[in-house]
Amino acid sequence: MKKDFIDSNDFTKQELTDIIELSLSIKKAIAKGYYPPLMKNMTLGMIFQQSSTRTRVSFETAMSQMGGHAQYLGPGMIQLGGHETIGDTGRVLSYLTDIVMARVITHKTVVDLAQACSVPVINGMSDYNHPTQEIGDMCTIFENLPRGRRLEDIKVVFVGDGTQVCASLGFITTKLGMHFVHYGPKGHQLNEEHKRILEENCRASGGSFEITDDRNSVREADFIYTDVWYGLYENEMPKEERVRVFHDYQVNRELMQLGNLGCKFMHCLPATRGEDVTDEVADSEASLCWEQAGNRLTAMRGLLVYFSRNRQCHTDLALAAAKEELDRTLYEKLGRSVI
Amino acid sequence: MKKDFIDSNDFTKQELTDIIELSLSIKKAIAKGYYPPLMKNMTLGMIFQQSSTRTRVSFETAMSQMGGHAQYLGPGMIQLGGHETIGDTGRVLSYLTDIVMARVITHKTVVDLAQACSVPVINGMSDYNHPTQEIGDMCTIFENLPRGRRLEDIKVVFVGDGTQVCASLGFITTKLGMHFVHYGPKGHQLNEEHKRILEENCRASGGSFEITDDRNSVREADFIYTDVWYGLYENEMPKEERVRVFHDYQVNRELMQLGNLGCKFMHCLPATRGEDVTDEVADSEASLCWEQAGNRLTAMRGLLVYFSRNRQCHTDLALAAAKEELDRTLYEKLGRSVI
Amino acid sequence: MKKDFIDSNDFTKQELTDIIELSLSIKKAIAKGYYPPLMKNMTLGMIFQQSSTRTRVSFETAMSQMGGHAQYLGPGMIQLGGHETIGDTGRVLSYLTDIVMARVITHKTVVDLAQACSVPVINGMSDYNHPTQEIGDMCTIFENLPRGRRLEDIKVVFVGDGTQVCASLGFITTKLGMHFVHYGPKGHQLNEEHKRILEENCRASGGSFEITDDRNSVREADFIYTDVWYGLYENEMPKEERVRVFHDYQVNRELMQLGNLGCKFMHCLPATRGEDVTDEVADSEASLCWEQAGNRLTAMRGLLVYFSRNRQCHTDLALAAAKEELDRTLYEKLGRSVI
Repeated sequence: MKKDFIDSNDFTKQELTDIIELSLSIKKAIAKGYYPPLMKNMTLGMIFQQSSTRTRVSFETAMSQMGGHAQYLGPGMIQLGGHETIGDTGRVLSYLTDIVMARVITHKTVVDLAQACSVPVINGMSDYNHPTQEIGDMCTIFENLPRGRRLEDIKVVFVGDGTQVCASLGFITTKLGMHFVHYGPKGHQLNEEHKRILEENCRASGGSFEITDDRNSVREADFIYTDVWYGLYENEMPKEERVRVFHDYQVNRELMQLGNLGCKFMHCLPATRGEDVTDEVADSEASLCWEQAGNRLTAMRGLLVYFSRNRQCHTDLALAAAKEELDRTLYEKLGRSVI
Repeated sequence: MKKDFIDSNDFTKQELTDIIELSLSIKKAIAKGYYPPLMKNMTLGMIFQQSSTRTRVSFETAMSQMGGHAQYLGPGMIQLGGHETIGDTGRVLSYLTDIVMARVITHKTVVDLAQACSVPVINGMSDYNHPTQEIGDMCTIFENLPRGRRLEDIKVVFVGDGTQVCASLGFITTKLGMHFVHYGPKGHQLNEEHKRILEENCRASGGSFEITDDRNSVREADFIYTDVWYGLYENEMPKEERVRVFHDYQVNRELMQLGNLGCKFMHCLPATRGEDVTDEVADSEASLCWEQAGNRLTAMRGLLVYFSRNRQCHTDLALAAAKEELDRTLYEKLGRSVI
Repeated sequence: MKKDFIDSNDFTKQELTDIIELSLSIKKAIAKGYYPPLMKNMTLGMIFQQSSTRTRVSFETAMSQMGGHAQYLGPGMIQLGGHETIGDTGRVLSYLTDIVMARVITHKTVVDLAQACSVPVINGMSDYNHPTQEIGDMCTIFENLPRGRRLEDIKVVFVGDGTQVCASLGFITTKLGMHFVHYGPKGHQLNEEHKRILEENCRASGGSFEITDDRNSVREADFIYTDVWYGLYENEMPKEERVRVFHDYQVNRELMQLGNLGCKFMHCLPATRGEDVTDEVADSEASLCWEQAGNRLTAMRGLLVYFSRNRQCHTDLALAAAKEELDRTLYEKLGRSVI
């Protein structure tokens, strides 16, 4: 049975930890110069309904570093959503690729795609969540755990708009038993459905969460995380309006100092410097946002390997027999053999 | 001498059969886990003047599965048709790639491109024909021949608009000695030029053809094939207009039952479900349209190997000598060698 | 320390000669069938703010021929210039790719990008210069030196508009000690800043230059070079206007005959046949413009290898140790190992 990565809440703490540790192991191997050919001969179809820097580049690099190939299927390039339904495109891609990822405008699209595909589908961000970001962020947190602290002791505060990245951060932290705060203005906080999921996660993991506009909630944060102040791409608020709503939620020196000593700054990027974060914070020693971007690649490698793990293996003998059989046809038809 | 694949009518029955059998052999090898590196070090330039799902993805997957690389040159990405003539772009691409494919709006473009290129050119669909589809469809028919029947006994009925896919199906079936029917409304049937070619093909192969709006022509079909009711992309008829013209030509349970027992449904896709075909038929056990999409990949692999077969081979000794010579320059200029 | 290739004037004559000779050596090896895996496991990020044929295709082919992979990041595909600053995109790409190239609208963009990136950046053309074209052109001149002549004896005349290609040709020829002429109409000649650089180059190299609208300057040319008559993409002059300004500067039989016996024609392409060059000249035996396009690939291979030369090497033992360590995690998490 194929498995998709649409929502981290479909997975157990153990499974998610496996993915994160696998990602970090592959990262270590590559840092030592060993590029494992774990995606050899495999093709990833990458559907993008929006522009993307980190998700696109990290998926494509991950595939080629591990011996596979990623195809960029951008807006308007294929018939999806134009002359063809999602279901039909999904069925077809299952014959032509080995694994599919999609960045979509509405979450239903990636859910429908996963249902239609007989190959694994990875959600590369929707309006609901951003699960590959979650894995990359956890890699970054694992690598930057404050001295002598366990994951279960860590407090992560998301500041600002309740975007899909905010929701995703809430999902993964509570799933792993951490302490999550969304500090944001009323009307832009995570909603009741989010709360229900966070509660369920905390019940299983022993984690906790809080959703509030009380600035004191930032105290004792180990990681302060933010995102842009405009809903990504759609329904962007005019600049003056968003500054009015969010100006207390800028991550600046003052806000960072509410956190624990050594508190780190995180951002999924792109950032709107001077709005959601000051240059001083983004470019400081406390900033992990660049490492985080690098760990998008770390996460993609781990996810690709994890979700294609059911790939069939073949013995050397079987491969040699298949080659010999093909060579016979090549000789007959073209007078040559496989090189 | 390089050879292009612009029109299947430029090839003999034997040559086309070779391409089909080669395609099926490579498919078998890959199904057994052996990916033959037959396109190693080679680059395919893919020119697309329109959006495409199956042709694009299958060419790109085919190249990477066989050790090569395909470059997507989509609308507006290169200067073709803007600042540069087709002829000049073709000459340049011949220096920078090893093989070229093009999906074009008008057939003359791919003909001119082939003339300008000194590397092989493959027609990825024009307004006149769709020859890579032909090879894929024949792979599907070869794999699904009714029990105890020979190719020469098979009747294939194309239902609906006389699109380039309809013409192509007529070309390949009559070339291979099969029995072809275009059942479509007057004004949307294959034209005199098509008839001339089908006649010529049948004379050589012993096949037959019929172009008619008589529903009885569907009887005894082994394969019923259809395409969308709008001329692809250009001059689309408004929905009401096309439903008025084509509503008797929908492939539904009733029409399928006119065919032979075990008659199969085929479609090049994308389909407009509810127009050219019902959900019931498209998703039924009799439907081959998904396998057909998968065999686009089968066909592309065979075509790429067949049309790059004149590629020069080099002895191991010659390669070692070339490496040694390059290593000398690398040491001198960079203080290193090839890894 | 990483080094970028933004402007050939940042390099010595020796360094540029090394790049050219390295490029020609790799070309020779590939002509003999040996594709050196010098970019193995490496990823090139290709940022294009404009359409491109030669630069795009040659970079992508170069990477795949040498075992690496190139990602096409075209207009609108990534957030650069939209939601993200150049500096931030550069920092991020440095984590996700190994080397970056950019075709930009304004030169400052590629300068800023290089400053932001911790990986090497190659300028794939700006409004100021076109340095990869320079290397390709020098490869072509090296391969076509008139019999018995040294580089220092060669006269190269650029005819027409003082485009970035004209400036680049002036830079590289004077850097290498050749004799450069820009023969163009007043108001469209290289400017004072260009002159300052050419003077400095000539002082060091012993070359010479002249900028003039005197047709006699074409006499004794070994190579006559031209470019289109419209400022590329931006501020295009209407056709009548540019014909009025430049009609004396068309490269035709008459103008070619002013050059030395055996004088060769060069053009960076695309050409506007009938404007900047006649069909007769472009398609003649004297025309090198197609070889030049082919040598864009020659240059890209050399540049990619040269600018990634500081890549760390690893011993077989170290790689085996890294593989073994990863295999342990794979067994534990997935019950399998690297194939």
